[in-house]
Amino acid sequence: MTKKNELPFGSIIGILGGGQLGRMLSLSASQLGFKTHIYDPDINAPAKQVTNLSSTFEYDDFKNLENFANKVDVITYEFENIPLETIKFCQNLKSVYPNYKSLGICQDRITEKNFLKSIGVETVKFEMASSYEEIKIAIENIGLPVVIKTSRFGYDGKGQKVIYKKEEIEKIVSEFIDVQVVIEKFIEFELEISVIICRDMSGKISAYDPSENIHKNGILVESKVPANISFSTSSDAIILASKIVRNLNYIGVMGIEFFITKEKKILVNEMAPRVHNSGHWTQTGCIISQFEQHIRAITGTPIGDGRRHSNVLMKNILGNQIFDINYENEKSINIYGKDKVKNNRKMGHVNIIK
Amino acid sequence: MTKKNELPFGSIIGILGGGQLGRMLSLSASQLGFKTHIYDPDINAPAKQVTNLSSTFEYDDFKNLENFANKVDVITYEFENIPLETIKFCQNLKSVYPNYKSLGICQDRITEKNFLKSIGVETVKFEMASSYEEIKIAIENIGLPVVIKTSRFGYDGKGQKVIYKKEEIEKIVSEFIDVQVVIEKFIEFELEISVIICRDMSGKISAYDPSENIHKNGILVESKVPANISFSTSSDAIILASKIVRNLNYIGVMGIEFFITKEKKILVNEMAPRVHNSGHWTQTGCIISQFEQHIRAITGTPIGDGRRHSNVLMKNILGNQIFDINYENEKSINIYGKDKVKNNRKMGHVNIIK
Repeated sequence: MTKKNELPFGSIIGILGGGQLGRMLSLSASQLGFKTHIYDPDINAPAKQVTNLSSTFEYDDFKNLENFANKVDVITYEFENIPLETIKFCQNLKSVYPNYKSLGICQDRITEKNFLKSIGVETVKFEMASSYEEIKIAIENIGLPVVIKTSRFGYDGKGQKVIYKKEEIEKIVSEFIDVQVVIEKFIEFELEISVIICRDMSGKISAYDPSENIHKNGILVESKVPANISFSTSSDAIILASKIVRNLNYIGVMGIEFFITKEKKILVNEMAPRVHNSGHWTQTGCIISQFEQHIRAITGTPIGDGRRHSNVLMKNILGNQIFDINYENEKSINIYGKDKVKNNRKMGHVNIIK
Repeated sequence: MTKKNELPFGSIIGILGGGQLGRMLSLSASQLGFKTHIYDPDINAPAKQVTNLSSTFEYDDFKNLENFANKVDVITYEFENIPLETIKFCQNLKSVYPNYKSLGICQDRITEKNFLKSIGVETVKFEMASSYEEIKIAIENIGLPVVIKTSRFGYDGKGQKVIYKKEEIEKIVSEFIDVQVVIEKFIEFELEISVIICRDMSGKISAYDPSENIHKNGILVESKVPANISFSTSSDAIILASKIVRNLNYIGVMGIEFFITKEKKILVNEMAPRVHNSGHWTQTGCIISQFEQHIRAITGTPIGDGRRHSNVLMKNILGNQIFDINYENEKSINIYGKDKVKNNRKMGHVNIIK
């Protein structure tokens, strides 16, 4: 079967990573008539429950990656900590979206901040450091309080700490030995928002309404739309997000977190080259969710306009909260099919229409 | 993992039949954190693409049905033409919803009409017949024009014909030799609506807004909500539908088609013991779709209230129309993953917010 100018129906989308994001990408791909093949070293990866095609091998098992790439029509991934080498290898065999360059930039906070600086997008004041001495100098230059973050492999608040007082420096820094770190000014932002944005193969860009996000212990707890921001803050954030994806020649969905300072300055906090937890509300608030939008973009199917028809509050279901779900009306409940409940593990989410 | 009073997350829902309805049931089950096992004699059944558990055997292969039943936690089915023997066999091993009695009644137009009569629900005037002589008498009693229908295994307009004139009787009746038929008065109804209704294990009933349906050549082409009917017609239809599911001690979703006559009389046309094509609009117009509602009911999860947040027009994508899909805004596109395009085959549907 063929569709005009696009991957035909029944084409196979290879997804590296089979967590909840891979699972929801797979469900949306199915809705559009595509097949999916999930590649994940974990045999119990949640996404493997929703497709009959999967591979259970390590990400650096190049022989099996080759088999995988040969069996699929296009490749995408669900998380930014996938080895760059894996993507490099795959892209020699099949198209991979988002591109290698974007992944490389998002994997490293320093590269990310330098990229943003280079295109004139403002971030929190930062310095990099890779030894105790350098860290001390960086803290002095920036001034307490600061956030110390590993440059690579951070997620859900892991790999970062706030240093408020001089006395804490030594103890906290000792946890960051022998790794490249970034020292950021700790700012008391007014609120945190994120923009879920998508760019397709023709260069068309479509963004969703910014959501307002609440984190606890570094983990997203709630996102709501509309965010409590002015129209101009909203459109400025979307303009910055477009600038980012355009400059990366990016294809697919990207999630970008911003801080809004008390002075209404918009600073980029983080970029994620993938569908994003703070965009889960789109499943209930829009005709075309972020998951469907991503699948459309990477298959050459025209993307939608991201229009929102309802106000939504998204709440994550963390750890044991899964046993206390209230199935009352006007809630859309999404459970990820994880095999074990762990403290603070993302087990599902609910979208509540407001 | 356990949920209070309900099938625990990760439980396996066995689905007999792997067409588009089985596929969409499976997608909704996944959203709620359940696994699904699709049983269908066709190895290319669309629903098998969206789960890693499936069986490819005939419905009367009792040895393999037993294996299937032993591996799942509850059983449901996606179509009413499944052999009654299959359900009888399965229910000795696991709970099957909707129940055997309801399936039996819906499988046979005569049984169905007699059941409706017995609970005081009006249908089109009909007589049964099983020979040419009986058919002629029935037509005489009812008066032309009439519809002649096989009593069993009709769907999508198959197994029925309209007889307008006396001269046509012989030719048309010759197509219905040696089968039990039902002769119905052919009425020029004003419009056709359907009610998608759900009853859960506690006896709670929830209905969606009636949709207005347009058929061509016996195949559903469009459903729209709200239907062009008065509030009292709408609530009367829902009351009749509730009466039906209550009397059958029914669990799950049922689709019931009604004719609204020019005199605003409400007559039941057909009952389907399953999710229904005319309820696909609920995926886009409601928080909880008919598919999710059915899964909730059969797993003991509380059902939703079926509230509609938007006006929707659902259009089926039939046969070659799949090559002409316009992916413009405000459309939700659903493609079923069928392996071949055939004339008038249901390939997908779109939901358009109005």
